[in-house]
Amino acid sequence: MQKYNGPAPSVSARAAKLVDGIVTDANALRCHVTTGGAGERCIDMGAQAIGGLEAGRRLAEVCMGGLGTVSLHTSSGLKRWPLGITVHASNPVIACLASQYAGWQISEQESGFFALGSGPARALSRVEALYKDLGYVDHFNKASLVIEGDKAPPASVARSIASACGVQPADLTILFAPTGSLAGTVQIAARVLEVALHKAHELHFPLEHIEDGIGTAPIAPPVPDFVKAMGRTNDAIIYGGRVQLFVRGGDEAAQKLAQQLPSSTCSAYGEPFADIFAAAGGDFYKIDPMLFSPAEVIVSNLDTGTSFHAGELAPDVVDKSFR
Amino acid sequence: MQKYNGPAPSVSARAAKLVDGIVTDANALRCHVTTGGAGERCIDMGAQAIGGLEAGRRLAEVCMGGLGTVSLHTSSGLKRWPLGITVHASNPVIACLASQYAGWQISEQESGFFALGSGPARALSRVEALYKDLGYVDHFNKASLVIEGDKAPPASVARSIASACGVQPADLTILFAPTGSLAGTVQIAARVLEVALHKAHELHFPLEHIEDGIGTAPIAPPVPDFVKAMGRTNDAIIYGGRVQLFVRGGDEAAQKLAQQLPSSTCSAYGEPFADIFAAAGGDFYKIDPMLFSPAEVIVSNLDTGTSFHAGELAPDVVDKSFR
Amino acid sequence: MQKYNGPAPSVSARAAKLVDGIVTDANALRCHVTTGGAGERCIDMGAQAIGGLEAGRRLAEVCMGGLGTVSLHTSSGLKRWPLGITVHASNPVIACLASQYAGWQISEQESGFFALGSGPARALSRVEALYKDLGYVDHFNKASLVIEGDKAPPASVARSIASACGVQPADLTILFAPTGSLAGTVQIAARVLEVALHKAHELHFPLEHIEDGIGTAPIAPPVPDFVKAMGRTNDAIIYGGRVQLFVRGGDEAAQKLAQQLPSSTCSAYGEPFADIFAAAGGDFYKIDPMLFSPAEVIVSNLDTGTSFHAGELAPDVVDKSFR
Repeated sequence: MQKYNGPAPSVSARAAKLVDGIVTDANALRCHVTTGGAGERCIDMGAQAIGGLEAGRRLAEVCMGGLGTVSLHTSSGLKRWPLGITVHASNPVIACLASQYAGWQISEQESGFFALGSGPARALSRVEALYKDLGYVDHFNKASLVIEGDKAPPASVARSIASACGVQPADLTILFAPTGSLAGTVQIAARVLEVALHKAHELHFPLEHIEDGIGTAPIAPPVPDFVKAMGRTNDAIIYGGRVQLFVRGGDEAAQKLAQQLPSSTCSAYGEPFADIFAAAGGDFYKIDPMLFSPAEVIVSNLDTGTSFHAGELAPDVVDKSFR
Repeated sequence: MQKYNGPAPSVSARAAKLVDGIVTDANALRCHVTTGGAGERCIDMGAQAIGGLEAGRRLAEVCMGGLGTVSLHTSSGLKRWPLGITVHASNPVIACLASQYAGWQISEQESGFFALGSGPARALSRVEALYKDLGYVDHFNKASLVIEGDKAPPASVARSIASACGVQPADLTILFAPTGSLAGTVQIAARVLEVALHKAHELHFPLEHIEDGIGTAPIAPPVPDFVKAMGRTNDAIIYGGRVQLFVRGGDEAAQKLAQQLPSSTCSAYGEPFADIFAAAGGDFYKIDPMLFSPAEVIVSNLDTGTSFHAGELAPDVVDKSFR
Repeated sequence: MQKYNGPAPSVSARAAKLVDGIVTDANALRCHVTTGGAGERCIDMGAQAIGGLEAGRRLAEVCMGGLGTVSLHTSSGLKRWPLGITVHASNPVIACLASQYAGWQISEQESGFFALGSGPARALSRVEALYKDLGYVDHFNKASLVIEGDKAPPASVARSIASACGVQPADLTILFAPTGSLAGTVQIAARVLEVALHKAHELHFPLEHIEDGIGTAPIAPPVPDFVKAMGRTNDAIIYGGRVQLFVRGGDEAAQKLAQQLPSSTCSAYGEPFADIFAAAGGDFYKIDPMLFSPAEVIVSNLDTGTSFHAGELAPDVVDKSFR
């Protein structure tokens, strides 16, 4: 059946309201709002600023372009690490892939600045090939970019970002929190659904066949060391994440997706991510990208009513990683 | 002790704000807002429109007349089907029985249209005998009606509905989603508390003795076939639903309510609902209405502090039904 | 590393918005708003008024000065008593200790009125020594005080409270609900995080080293008898509460905090609180204050990434208490 397909929502417009809310609540959230060298607005949510769990929850909702709901709870499904997040979205493909995915490589030779940009500004700049597959276009006069890192970019980079997004530097907001901060660890855990959608895309499952989804992951205890923090936040999803997707199409395709989706299908699976990273000589790109997915998945086919279960939580590996 | 009893809230007034919010967010929620033949506003939340889990969550809050809180989570209590909803209300008898219950039989011979109307418009039309027991009267100039089905009613029916509610057709909003849609399956799961209150009423437990309650149910994977979808959504509550009620009165009455409330007290209990339905020759009204209740209940008596537990989840039957 | 420390949020300003929201929704929440003898606003949330779970949830967010998020769920972690709350805050030390803690002893000889005041008004009056340790100052022209009890104070006391807060009596709101009411039992369960922070302070752990936390506790079934209600609501935390704290500093201090924090470290631990209270001859102040803490804790050190687990839930004692 051909479904009605209305105009897509603007992730930048929706996120702008959330960002303004963070600015209003900055003192309560222990975030630090400053004006950068190009006139851009910078929001430190966990580097020099304290931030916290709630700051991270709100940052995650910005990442999802105002289309997602992120809630903190103590029902992760892992007995020893009950603190968890659950995430769903009114339009998960747009929320997760067109906005939340950290796919915009931002770098500048002079300053040596490098970051992976996330959030709704990506859909304004559209520098990633992914947007061809997504067929999503956004237009808005304010851009919100999220950076997993301990500092905002220099003025020259901010100017380039604004320019790529087609906005004035003063209309650009950059929100940032390091991997090892509370806000950072929460916003990464909130990627559990995005990671599943991204892998589904890598597996060539048609994105237009993914109608909905919901995910849960434990929140890794932050650790200052970047590699350890990267390890734990990845483990939260790879060994502690659970996702249910609702798809269209044939049962064969749905079953195949379920079987291929869990992290356990990857040969590197089984050890904490920091160990896998070390074994790969510290080269992120030598790691099989198929590892980046939730531990446990259910794929439910809306066209047939059949559900496919695959994978399972690996509490022992999470323990090894988080302790 | 005689409790203070202030003026009752208007479920139509509270729901109208939520409905306007859905219209504002229609693109994000993948709902389709149109104007019907009589000038009424129609919101497709899962028939031709995609809708989704979040659309269903918001639809459920409309059903409850803006008095309920419906949240999605992955802690249903069923290992294999963790996706669940939890529902409570600031005034559960009004929210669930005066608004959410699908008790308004709307039919028209000429068009052959038939639907069970749910939501706050019921309390404006008051065509059901139930309102005599509830003693609840609402007045508002806008009506919101929810239909579990794949289409809005024809213009003639919309005119009758508006007339029964005492509003202009242009002030009537009809929200609809089929049983087998994501929004449908969520809004039905959100009836877990309503179903308990309705059965309590059928059991002649005084409604004015029910002060509060909270319920949780798994969300059934949608399936296009109507009978199967009806089966699963019923099973979600009958075999997977849990409710705690807070009541007044004597312990004997509270204990009796607890013992009679769970679905397991019904002789038909034990098989998936679709099988029970088939065994009844496809005649819904031949099925013992006492089957429609949560699997597990706690009745806590506010006057004595005693709680009564009865029933238990039946994960095996849920598995048979959902798989 | 020296963290950026922005201006602290005003708990009274934030709470005032929540209080106004409760007044707007008073009919829906079954609360009773009246004007007291000194012109102060009184909100009965569970004495003569019915109130309910949702009224209690909102009352708890007022207690936390608009900095906390309190959610109801059915994942307490206790099989027999699944109804629970989870609480976290954007700034837990201010939310819990500067606002939520019931530390203001309000008494008047003439009328014999006595109550422990809680909520943001405390930070305006600053009559407690605790504020010296907190170093928190608030200024606002409206005061919100929460009382666990069955009546608002007499006019003379209201005048004293307003005066101590530096506001006009007409700018004072007093919200109250008895221990044995639904709203009461919810707002007390929501103290699970506060209780942990308060004990940490008693143990001389530096409050400025506590950056964040989250807690969960079951919601005790209300019981009219005050001593029983006090017993159950305490047991909900002492035997059913779980908290995770995120701290700074050395691992030795974090580990020591974890080991000393759970209720099980106290010699009186093991019996329902009502029995402990009876054994102490009904003298609250003869009970070891170290008993007042969650059953299970995780202390995660943000400076090292190490977590320390201690204590465990005691479902048997909760059963003895709640049944």
